[in-house]
Amino acid sequence: MPVRFAYLGPEGTFTEAALRTIPAAEQGERTPARSVPEALEAVRSGTADAALVPLENSVGGAVPVTLDELITGSPLMITREVLLPVEFVLGARTAAPLAAIRSIAAHPQASAQCRRWLQANVPDAVVVDVLSNAAAAISAATGEYDAAICAPIGVGRNGLTVLAEKIADRAEAVTRFALLTRPGPPAAPTGDDVTSLAVSIRHDQVGALLAVLTELAVRGINLSRIESRPTGEQLGTYVFFLDCTGHVAEPRLGEALQGLRRICAEVRFLGSYPKHRLQPEAPVAAPPGLSDDDFADSAAWLERLRSGG
Amino acid sequence: MPVRFAYLGPEGTFTEAALRTIPAAEQGERTPARSVPEALEAVRSGTADAALVPLENSVGGAVPVTLDELITGSPLMITREVLLPVEFVLGARTAAPLAAIRSIAAHPQASAQCRRWLQANVPDAVVVDVLSNAAAAISAATGEYDAAICAPIGVGRNGLTVLAEKIADRAEAVTRFALLTRPGPPAAPTGDDVTSLAVSIRHDQVGALLAVLTELAVRGINLSRIESRPTGEQLGTYVFFLDCTGHVAEPRLGEALQGLRRICAEVRFLGSYPKHRLQPEAPVAAPPGLSDDDFADSAAWLERLRSGG
Amino acid sequence: MPVRFAYLGPEGTFTEAALRTIPAAEQGERTPARSVPEALEAVRSGTADAALVPLENSVGGAVPVTLDELITGSPLMITREVLLPVEFVLGARTAAPLAAIRSIAAHPQASAQCRRWLQANVPDAVVVDVLSNAAAAISAATGEYDAAICAPIGVGRNGLTVLAEKIADRAEAVTRFALLTRPGPPAAPTGDDVTSLAVSIRHDQVGALLAVLTELAVRGINLSRIESRPTGEQLGTYVFFLDCTGHVAEPRLGEALQGLRRICAEVRFLGSYPKHRLQPEAPVAAPPGLSDDDFADSAAWLERLRSGG
Amino acid sequence: MPVRFAYLGPEGTFTEAALRTIPAAEQGERTPARSVPEALEAVRSGTADAALVPLENSVGGAVPVTLDELITGSPLMITREVLLPVEFVLGARTAAPLAAIRSIAAHPQASAQCRRWLQANVPDAVVVDVLSNAAAAISAATGEYDAAICAPIGVGRNGLTVLAEKIADRAEAVTRFALLTRPGPPAAPTGDDVTSLAVSIRHDQVGALLAVLTELAVRGINLSRIESRPTGEQLGTYVFFLDCTGHVAEPRLGEALQGLRRICAEVRFLGSYPKHRLQPEAPVAAPPGLSDDDFADSAAWLERLRSGG
Repeated sequence: MPVRFAYLGPEGTFTEAALRTIPAAEQGERTPARSVPEALEAVRSGTADAALVPLENSVGGAVPVTLDELITGSPLMITREVLLPVEFVLGARTAAPLAAIRSIAAHPQASAQCRRWLQANVPDAVVVDVLSNAAAAISAATGEYDAAICAPIGVGRNGLTVLAEKIADRAEAVTRFALLTRPGPPAAPTGDDVTSLAVSIRHDQVGALLAVLTELAVRGINLSRIESRPTGEQLGTYVFFLDCTGHVAEPRLGEALQGLRRICAEVRFLGSYPKHRLQPEAPVAAPPGLSDDDFADSAAWLERLRSGG
Repeated sequence: MPVRFAYLGPEGTFTEAALRTIPAAEQGERTPARSVPEALEAVRSGTADAALVPLENSVGGAVPVTLDELITGSPLMITREVLLPVEFVLGARTAAPLAAIRSIAAHPQASAQCRRWLQANVPDAVVVDVLSNAAAAISAATGEYDAAICAPIGVGRNGLTVLAEKIADRAEAVTRFALLTRPGPPAAPTGDDVTSLAVSIRHDQVGALLAVLTELAVRGINLSRIESRPTGEQLGTYVFFLDCTGHVAEPRLGEALQGLRRICAEVRFLGSYPKHRLQPEAPVAAPPGLSDDDFADSAAWLERLRSGG
Repeated sequence: MPVRFAYLGPEGTFTEAALRTIPAAEQGERTPARSVPEALEAVRSGTADAALVPLENSVGGAVPVTLDELITGSPLMITREVLLPVEFVLGARTAAPLAAIRSIAAHPQASAQCRRWLQANVPDAVVVDVLSNAAAAISAATGEYDAAICAPIGVGRNGLTVLAEKIADRAEAVTRFALLTRPGPPAAPTGDDVTSLAVSIRHDQVGALLAVLTELAVRGINLSRIESRPTGEQLGTYVFFLDCTGHVAEPRLGEALQGLRRICAEVRFLGSYPKHRLQPEAPVAAPPGLSDDDFADSAAWLERLRSGG
Repeated sequence: MPVRFAYLGPEGTFTEAALRTIPAAEQGERTPARSVPEALEAVRSGTADAALVPLENSVGGAVPVTLDELITGSPLMITREVLLPVEFVLGARTAAPLAAIRSIAAHPQASAQCRRWLQANVPDAVVVDVLSNAAAAISAATGEYDAAICAPIGVGRNGLTVLAEKIADRAEAVTRFALLTRPGPPAAPTGDDVTSLAVSIRHDQVGALLAVLTELAVRGINLSRIESRPTGEQLGTYVFFLDCTGHVAEPRLGEALQGLRRICAEVRFLGSYPKHRLQPEAPVAAPPGLSDDDFADSAAWLERLRSGG
């Protein structure tokens, strides 16, 4: 059980809020890091047991630095995912009518996600870019700007007054975080798990990517996420980040993983961990003929053929 | 070790010649059957230990009755294949110049395979259809016709004189025979084996057959033969007979067989047995990345992932 | 319009019956040939305008000699298919109780299709193999044997009495015949057509056959029949006979044909002709998104992209 | 010929440098925009004829805001790509030894790309995040910080002294920019073109993405880039950005585009334009059997079949 947690800081951002949903972290030691690489370095070097970093956002997409860190340096393993609905608020030092707001501090990604709300409600305010949601909250608290777009967690920490809640244009935005540890045995399957992989493919993209997807499709593996990243070596070469439904301990996924291992230049296993669901939802069912029972039946049949039984 | 052998008769045909290449049959008891179903019935009922029947000919194609028998009735298993070069001779009761031959008895498939030779060498002779190569030889021996197209084995048995040898238009024609027994454990792999299957596919042909081939291709299984047979139920529904390189005891083929079992309406395993080669030839190599070593490597890798090692 | 028709003889077989369902042939000149090659040679040499030969039977499978003839020699084109339900009768010179029948002449394929009826109804009769259904009827008419299994057409022609009708074990057996002419422009599409092809594939079977099926599947082409034939060159090399739903004049099939032409060692176009249906039945619908309308829509869209419209 | 160019500002960044490599832009009117959406809005509204914005970087990956803008709002078309090697310099108000530098202003992505250089050469300097490379240069020019990581173009514009050149950890980093206009007829093919697409796929990712890649592979289309973006609707639904080798006017690509149009929920054509190569390099060759000549040959063959010629 990890005790010392690193996370992408500063304090008062969504990552801290996500971390505190994990009971062990709420009770343990939480240390903000200045960057994703720094948070992961703390785990690699042993000064932290685990690190929570953002992986992707349903509006903004993948977090490149996290993906890049996962495929370079010594291996790390995702042991848990945390989904956190993204809620932006407009906060200010004191209560004020919206019409009185002349300047608003915001991280560019935050203001982008609230663009339509801003045009409709504070069309005359100047939006000033700052470097983080936490920095925005601080600049409103100090009075540098009239208001700030920030996370709810930034309101309490800086003693702000909420002028408007849920101001994001898309109400359903979600950020997904990964809790990373040094490699070890994966937790036991729960029946509703995710397995994350980073797959480097050879040469020509069409054929190689077709082959990867075929290995998965033949075993009925569902792909809940696919993300390509250039390798940094040259335009046109990629690593694919895949999230598959299932657990490495299961025969279906085990067979598919072996297939990928055989055909890919490199497969990095990034962990099998429980799927985090914000609402109760059934796990994705296997296609007809490709359920775990079907795999067990075909294995028993092969055994009979081999023994002549 | 089988002792009592049934075979497709009558005596004096290629099937008897093929059977006698098997040492146990040369020393054992050999009983001709009037038809392929009768030969196989002898095995099913236990009056014979094994039966040799023709499977396919490189010129004439598959032998439908054999294929149909393999997928109906109680299961049988191929334990051995025998390849026999097909050599036709022109035999007669006594020596005679070809110009003197006015009538030739021949099984229609035999005369078809010698058509060009007949046109070139005995253009004026009448070719009379008879019901087997053996019947042809007998009718020449009795003087009913001037000559017969028959197998070399039919010459000695009927005291014929050979007027011409190797008269088939294609010198390299080969017939392949299968030795069938009741089901049991397959013989151990030799490193150069064949596995035969009968696969019934569902509904639409393009998609279902694509899926079958994909299961094989993904595991690097080579297909040395594919033969479609209507199921007899209606035009457009098929059973496919597949000969795969490899042995059911091997991981590669075992995984592919399980895959077929899961997606096909029915898979009938027809045996794993040594490849018979008329000339020394290397077994077909697995595609790059799909060798037995690659399968062993990927299995060991998966084991490490699962144990966290 | 063809006037002189050759067909696989002798007179009094199913092929003649099939030919007479074609009005032009009923009124035209009909010449039996001794063999399929002879019938086709009559067309190739110009002594006949068209030839009708059997292509496949729902019980017995493909007719190898017809397939082989279609891929060798100068090209011929299927301009029409004829489906004929196969009905066997037991005929004799005079009326007699079944119990009195001691010998029955039959072509081996005919007796095979009636095996269960024979066992149940004339268990003690000896079945004697003869070379055609017509020969069986003649031998009953001459009194050489007590009865014959033959086609209904053979009854009238030989003045036989029908002892039993519809004696085939499978009531629904159907034979499919092809009417072949010298190549020319295909008839106009009817909206319910078949296109026949012979496709030679390269090297390794799994990959090459996968590629062929993929070319068809991508264009939503339905495969109503697939038949493999060894090329005769060596065991393991094949020609595939494909019957596709659609007409060469249609964009969908045209695009698929071009794809096959590019990837196959050889594609022989064997004709586009109306589907013969024994019962009224709707043509096979294209998969979703792959209808003729979808093809027209995508072509129009591409045109707009190219013109910048 | 466009005359009025918008570009992602501020002045003095890589985008301005890239724009000035286009002769018409060097001579025309160049207006910096505060954001990618603003630059593109200038084109959509007609206040600019074309806009240059960054598309991807070989190290940092895709520029999400550009991709998102390309698939929302009224369509725009890429008419040109510009590749620019990314070179970072360390600039300061006056010459100084590196050991004297205590604070460095940098855009976070710039400092990330120079991380190893910074550790090795100025290990004790504090790196301060600022909002753009141009802002970094300005803050060094005003003396707010001792030095700045910036683009070479930022040096001249702000009168800085270069303390170190080519300080990026990866010497070969390249940024790719797109010149966007309102839709119109694409420029004529040059024989070395790129076609960009945005493709929305349905439902399950494995099957739908497999189908997309198969449409391309069957026509031998090379994929030089694939980038997935969440649609913003929910985690797990994607738009794929594809760069294909070839031009919409060519038969191969035209056929593939039609195929995508039929199977995808939506295909947005983003333009066909000349490939920009920093070094002379041959275009990617088509796979065997899938060259333009092979397409022409198969089209001619189909024409002969249809006409019966």
